[in-house]
Amino acid sequence: MAFVFKSAFRKQGLFVPFLNAVRGMSSSGESTPAFTTLSISQPLDTITHVEISRPEKRNAMNKAFWLEIVDCFNQIAEDPECRAVVFSGAGKLFTSGIDLMGMAGGILQPVGDDTARISWNLRRTISKYQETFSVIEKCPKPVIVAVHGACIGGGVDLITACDIRLCTQDAWFQVKEVDIGLAADVGTLQRLPRVIGSRSLVNELALTARKMYADEAKSCGLVSRVFPDKETMMAGALEMAQEIASKSPVAVQGTKVNLIYSRDHSVPDSLNYMNTWNMSMLQTQDLMKSAQAAMEKKNLKEVIFSKL
Amino acid sequence: MAFVFKSAFRKQGLFVPFLNAVRGMSSSGESTPAFTTLSISQPLDTITHVEISRPEKRNAMNKAFWLEIVDCFNQIAEDPECRAVVFSGAGKLFTSGIDLMGMAGGILQPVGDDTARISWNLRRTISKYQETFSVIEKCPKPVIVAVHGACIGGGVDLITACDIRLCTQDAWFQVKEVDIGLAADVGTLQRLPRVIGSRSLVNELALTARKMYADEAKSCGLVSRVFPDKETMMAGALEMAQEIASKSPVAVQGTKVNLIYSRDHSVPDSLNYMNTWNMSMLQTQDLMKSAQAAMEKKNLKEVIFSKL
Amino acid sequence: MAFVFKSAFRKQGLFVPFLNAVRGMSSSGESTPAFTTLSISQPLDTITHVEISRPEKRNAMNKAFWLEIVDCFNQIAEDPECRAVVFSGAGKLFTSGIDLMGMAGGILQPVGDDTARISWNLRRTISKYQETFSVIEKCPKPVIVAVHGACIGGGVDLITACDIRLCTQDAWFQVKEVDIGLAADVGTLQRLPRVIGSRSLVNELALTARKMYADEAKSCGLVSRVFPDKETMMAGALEMAQEIASKSPVAVQGTKVNLIYSRDHSVPDSLNYMNTWNMSMLQTQDLMKSAQAAMEKKNLKEVIFSKL
Amino acid sequence: MAFVFKSAFRKQGLFVPFLNAVRGMSSSGESTPAFTTLSISQPLDTITHVEISRPEKRNAMNKAFWLEIVDCFNQIAEDPECRAVVFSGAGKLFTSGIDLMGMAGGILQPVGDDTARISWNLRRTISKYQETFSVIEKCPKPVIVAVHGACIGGGVDLITACDIRLCTQDAWFQVKEVDIGLAADVGTLQRLPRVIGSRSLVNELALTARKMYADEAKSCGLVSRVFPDKETMMAGALEMAQEIASKSPVAVQGTKVNLIYSRDHSVPDSLNYMNTWNMSMLQTQDLMKSAQAAMEKKNLKEVIFSKL
Amino acid sequence: MAFVFKSAFRKQGLFVPFLNAVRGMSSSGESTPAFTTLSISQPLDTITHVEISRPEKRNAMNKAFWLEIVDCFNQIAEDPECRAVVFSGAGKLFTSGIDLMGMAGGILQPVGDDTARISWNLRRTISKYQETFSVIEKCPKPVIVAVHGACIGGGVDLITACDIRLCTQDAWFQVKEVDIGLAADVGTLQRLPRVIGSRSLVNELALTARKMYADEAKSCGLVSRVFPDKETMMAGALEMAQEIASKSPVAVQGTKVNLIYSRDHSVPDSLNYMNTWNMSMLQTQDLMKSAQAAMEKKNLKEVIFSKL
Amino acid sequence: MAFVFKSAFRKQGLFVPFLNAVRGMSSSGESTPAFTTLSISQPLDTITHVEISRPEKRNAMNKAFWLEIVDCFNQIAEDPECRAVVFSGAGKLFTSGIDLMGMAGGILQPVGDDTARISWNLRRTISKYQETFSVIEKCPKPVIVAVHGACIGGGVDLITACDIRLCTQDAWFQVKEVDIGLAADVGTLQRLPRVIGSRSLVNELALTARKMYADEAKSCGLVSRVFPDKETMMAGALEMAQEIASKSPVAVQGTKVNLIYSRDHSVPDSLNYMNTWNMSMLQTQDLMKSAQAAMEKKNLKEVIFSKL
Repeated sequence: MAFVFKSAFRKQGLFVPFLNAVRGMSSSGESTPAFTTLSISQPLDTITHVEISRPEKRNAMNKAFWLEIVDCFNQIAEDPECRAVVFSGAGKLFTSGIDLMGMAGGILQPVGDDTARISWNLRRTISKYQETFSVIEKCPKPVIVAVHGACIGGGVDLITACDIRLCTQDAWFQVKEVDIGLAADVGTLQRLPRVIGSRSLVNELALTARKMYADEAKSCGLVSRVFPDKETMMAGALEMAQEIASKSPVAVQGTKVNLIYSRDHSVPDSLNYMNTWNMSMLQTQDLMKSAQAAMEKKNLKEVIFSKL
Repeated sequence: MAFVFKSAFRKQGLFVPFLNAVRGMSSSGESTPAFTTLSISQPLDTITHVEISRPEKRNAMNKAFWLEIVDCFNQIAEDPECRAVVFSGAGKLFTSGIDLMGMAGGILQPVGDDTARISWNLRRTISKYQETFSVIEKCPKPVIVAVHGACIGGGVDLITACDIRLCTQDAWFQVKEVDIGLAADVGTLQRLPRVIGSRSLVNELALTARKMYADEAKSCGLVSRVFPDKETMMAGALEMAQEIASKSPVAVQGTKVNLIYSRDHSVPDSLNYMNTWNMSMLQTQDLMKSAQAAMEKKNLKEVIFSKL
Repeated sequence: MAFVFKSAFRKQGLFVPFLNAVRGMSSSGESTPAFTTLSISQPLDTITHVEISRPEKRNAMNKAFWLEIVDCFNQIAEDPECRAVVFSGAGKLFTSGIDLMGMAGGILQPVGDDTARISWNLRRTISKYQETFSVIEKCPKPVIVAVHGACIGGGVDLITACDIRLCTQDAWFQVKEVDIGLAADVGTLQRLPRVIGSRSLVNELALTARKMYADEAKSCGLVSRVFPDKETMMAGALEMAQEIASKSPVAVQGTKVNLIYSRDHSVPDSLNYMNTWNMSMLQTQDLMKSAQAAMEKKNLKEVIFSKL
Repeated sequence: MAFVFKSAFRKQGLFVPFLNAVRGMSSSGESTPAFTTLSISQPLDTITHVEISRPEKRNAMNKAFWLEIVDCFNQIAEDPECRAVVFSGAGKLFTSGIDLMGMAGGILQPVGDDTARISWNLRRTISKYQETFSVIEKCPKPVIVAVHGACIGGGVDLITACDIRLCTQDAWFQVKEVDIGLAADVGTLQRLPRVIGSRSLVNELALTARKMYADEAKSCGLVSRVFPDKETMMAGALEMAQEIASKSPVAVQGTKVNLIYSRDHSVPDSLNYMNTWNMSMLQTQDLMKSAQAAMEKKNLKEVIFSKL
Repeated sequence: MAFVFKSAFRKQGLFVPFLNAVRGMSSSGESTPAFTTLSISQPLDTITHVEISRPEKRNAMNKAFWLEIVDCFNQIAEDPECRAVVFSGAGKLFTSGIDLMGMAGGILQPVGDDTARISWNLRRTISKYQETFSVIEKCPKPVIVAVHGACIGGGVDLITACDIRLCTQDAWFQVKEVDIGLAADVGTLQRLPRVIGSRSLVNELALTARKMYADEAKSCGLVSRVFPDKETMMAGALEMAQEIASKSPVAVQGTKVNLIYSRDHSVPDSLNYMNTWNMSMLQTQDLMKSAQAAMEKKNLKEVIFSKL
Repeated sequence: MAFVFKSAFRKQGLFVPFLNAVRGMSSSGESTPAFTTLSISQPLDTITHVEISRPEKRNAMNKAFWLEIVDCFNQIAEDPECRAVVFSGAGKLFTSGIDLMGMAGGILQPVGDDTARISWNLRRTISKYQETFSVIEKCPKPVIVAVHGACIGGGVDLITACDIRLCTQDAWFQVKEVDIGLAADVGTLQRLPRVIGSRSLVNELALTARKMYADEAKSCGLVSRVFPDKETMMAGALEMAQEIASKSPVAVQGTKVNLIYSRDHSVPDSLNYMNTWNMSMLQTQDLMKSAQAAMEKKNLKEVIFSKL
């Protein structure tokens, strides 16, 4: 499926392997190690496609995955070319969640001389897992996540840290953690209630671990669009990414930063922050370029904005 | 109707009078006085059913009710057996709200030598009423509220403090307070906007006091499920309660505590709290028991978790 | 269209020019200058109708508009007669947003001797624009906004600061700012996520600048009602305003104040504030008047409440 | 020493046993059980003196103490006569802190089937201990604490929850908890940094457990006055309590409530709360009575204010 | 005394009547009405001296005062020349606080048809008084307040809203409000605890209304310097104002804004705001000018910074 | 002077080069590069001494310094042996602050195609500098900073992020930033007001850039102890570090974490966090070991606590 997605753009000659690009911008001169759980490509210069690629393991999240997501999104954050990200899963489903087998020795076998020390170490571990998804949020480039098939457990934590959620008609979502004996601790309980519009539903999903299918996901607002199949969804995701990437990166990334800021602060505080943000950001050439294009009814895709 | 609900479980021999149970756990040795406005039963060992039982008064909330809810949920909070609660109303409707007649002498006839002293006393009174519903929230056991017929005024304050809301097709909801000359002060204005996904609708309901029927309640997210009639709903509520009660209480109750925490704090703060919470809670046997059941594809209902 | 709206009430002899009214209440004795971008009328004594009236300019927001909104809502806030506000646009659409041409010299040509000073001045300017819509929120009278046709850019900032949103079937909404090179900075990024129930949709709208039509606006909760055409909508808005205006102003305005307070504070903090608010507000005659009407099944429109 | 304190007022015929007073006001009709760790008296009608009275155990805080403090301050909060509280310790020192021996079975021997359950129970226990001192803060009557000799461990937690701190020249303070292997968890780490003006000193005291003597306690602001000996201090404390008790209880208790509110909220939030508080409290007769006394240069002690 | 202060600068030919200056910058073309309770002068182009000038009424705060402070500091905020403010009192003392006689009809005679309406009006009144001192804080120019003789009641509210506090050896401070039957509601209870380093002292002052003299004011941190008499103090205040006015206004005013921001937000939030603030403010020529002066060991008074 | 400090412990044979220690614990197997601006040693196994060591450049903070502090404290945070840190400066003074010369090309020469992009890059740069000192705070080991001679500009930002501040009699402190044209942006404006007890003094220091000497630093609470000379101070710092290091690391580090948490949250929130923290941390062997030592009057230095 990833093949289909990429091939749609190959004819435009725009497909460029991601790693070369990031190698170029690396300030330290180290070569970026290849990822083992993620497949990265650039369907367009300005768009990065991140794919979970352990299809033989149902894209389960193993130890390498947690580290690679951090590296990947930190690199994307620093990449001046990238203006939008599409995130999806390879194979038959988005992700089956945490790889319990592959994680043995981590959370399941904590170490320490007494309960306090075991707790201390566990806290550091959970904190790292939490940070894994928070980097997606801290990366100022918008992240469109496209879900097909199952999205279970850690998968829900992950997608709630993305900006825009799309899914296929066959997708389903499951806050699985209570079923394996724990309160979800890498983001779902914190972000899901801010992402959808029914607290009764949030609670039901988190307390019963029942599956939610595409239609309910759309009507409750978890996803903003449902597509008939993965191919259509990937095309739709890419089109949306292109749309976003065509606009001023100063405008787009400032929008993401301030949307997340306002989630965590009161309206007056958020207006104050916005104000202080835009006192410099309005001094961009992009404003004139965009305004001129608007007056001339030109498509923004024809406007060239400097890198950010 | 309460009869139907309970009888569905009587054949399983699981029905146990609640008061005996709580008496047993009472540390102070005092016997619990019987409630006059609530009927309590245990359709299953792990499930408590709380029913407002003043059907002849349309389940109006009188003075006794406000005190008994506090006692009831404090007892439930302390009851190590109870893992989920179903809350409903006896008779033809859920509740007609505050019992204006029965409350005379309280809010309507405040006392004090001057305006300041009357205000001082009123504040203490309102504070106690607020606390009545906050105890539902502070009780770590999930509370599923099942609404049929009317749910008016104080009834809306009450259900927004519950975790999961279900209703029948004939249910309707009314934020009635402006109609009797006051701003709703025991929770609706604080919780309803966080419970449903349309602020325009919240404002409309609170400012016009218009009725909202089951379909709109579902589509706006106030309830997460609508049932054709009360019998079906009670069966559905109980099934959901059983589902929840079958899971690790460490996971379930930690989930409730953290969902409420995250409502009132920013995402980063809530992640930090979650982290500190789970550093000990992940050291539960339930994690292994649940994970093992998951691998063996066993139903969690077959797993025995220690009391909490 | 404004004509139709007003004429519906002229026969009741209730139409009174607004400016006379406010002139009467002016404590400073200065005469109020007539507005050039707003048309104000009073379909009922207790209801003020504010209309953006630059139809020939598609109700674009020019410099005068930003100042007049502040004056207008400050006057309404002080007007003891007014109990509810209807806000709409004259002509073919609600508003095309900021008047880029008419604003030249403001945000587009900031002044200052260096970047810091330009920023300093820009911050003050943005702050004033933000305050323009915040006065709608600070005005304790409920504001029902009725949108027909287009509601673009600044229009979305404006309507999210109103309390209840209605629209016609032909209405559409567009968070336009990214298209002209800036992050929306007068309220949309701060209020929209609290107004609708899907963060994925908020992000999509703000990052892609795509149009959203009436049906989606209804299903996501941006508006709470959709009307077939403007005439019906204006009648509906007025009816709702009448409904609200018939109730105790102590109850209604206290409800608005506390709904906004609770948006920006935690539930416990908001309950505490509510408590302290109502310790005096419950000492109103309106409580008795309303309760008596309720018992006598009298319509509140027959009850006379003192001015507030 | 307590004797000396009380005798100073006996001649005024004002000494009244506390328990009779509270019995009188008890709404439930139950007789108040005598306290075993606290000695309560009323040197004046309007002043309650609470004394830790386990001098033979160096006023160590045993299980009974933690419960009795709650009962005691809840009763004081409800007592309409009481307008100020003096808190001190009987015997040679203020308190040696938690009674490790007497508490065995509580924190030191937590119960539960696994680490999660032990943690769950410990959290409830700590929470109750925290609440013990928070009730002092929630009681709206000002509490003057007078420290002589040692004030160790839990004693520091206790005094930071009081409003005014006095000490004798021979007093010393010790944040002892790190020395027994735990981070202080009943208030010191939360309140001490807000109580004194040097964070370096707070950290030093909490991390090294070193003793701080009266002079340093005065210069860092922990206490606001140092007295040569206990007798002088008790007289000073009582004089201060009388001074406070002579003023309008509406003014005094509103001051305490708002001082604590402002500690935990921003200045703008606190001004808003103050505003909403005083909109009713200014409607007190006390304002006129006090203003008149001020104009007539009369001592407030001659003015009679209604009970609160 | 004001005479002495001004004359010290007259010889430098720098004394310029303030009102001309503000008239020049008035955008509306209206002439500024002269103040009746404040005397304004400009000892230096860059320094504004505001003096409470009702010495015959002991500088008591009457109705006009509350309005004029707002006008005065709003004008100062907008005055691009002004870089620092000195605030003092004419005559024998700083201020005797609120003018109870002169305020009759305001707070003491509230109007409204019932308690709720009286409360509503009182709240608006208190809110305006609060705003009076908050404008000092919102004005980005540093305000040095110089206190001699008495500073009572509202005077303490006022000075805690200033940035730097100086006093004479004969100065004394009194939180007087409890003595006239109310909790201080225009800032003292909110700001004093953040201004000095002993909460015990704050509470003692606010609850007993005792006087605090210069030495204690210095040792507790209320003032940062004590001068032997008013003449020395005014010279010292002016010298300090000159020192501040000689520096980059971008640096100085950004410092004030961020110091106040950080008082009301957590450290991480405040760092984030600072960051967003300085991303533009560091792009000032002043940085280079100042750095160059520093390297050349030149006095900043020789450097010319653009107006802000 | 560093020599003197270390030599005092050499005789105990405890001096161990730091880098070997951290190399041993490095999980990645990479060898730690030597620091060029910091000199690290271990006077005791459990104590790390960090010294700014650019005496020839007056310990000015150059680019390398900012990076090395991060690496250094991240390593210390991960080092299970280290229980306390002493931080000081080599040569004649603590630090002259930021190395303006050595930083050229960073803040002074920002890059970007327009003002918005320059701002974007500046924000990232400032953010990194801020993070440099925040890592000291995030490191759970207590940091005692010992200042001699000058502590200027960035030096004040640095020391306010440490836990305990000591200084010599010849030390002086200067918030220098306004003198070089900027508002201090790496922590002083955020932390200094929480560190000392006089806001008037904070404002004066930050707005005038005047020097503050040791005695005032002590009386305002910036430092908690003043020593006659550097040698005495280093001995005192080490003694204090030893005292801290002798206690349970679970207790000590939990104390630091919670002291910083409570600075940024309200008292109720901080009590809740403390509660959740200690529900696991009280389950440490250290509690029993410490309690037993206390009962046996044994010195804690004789007790062996497990590493953390």
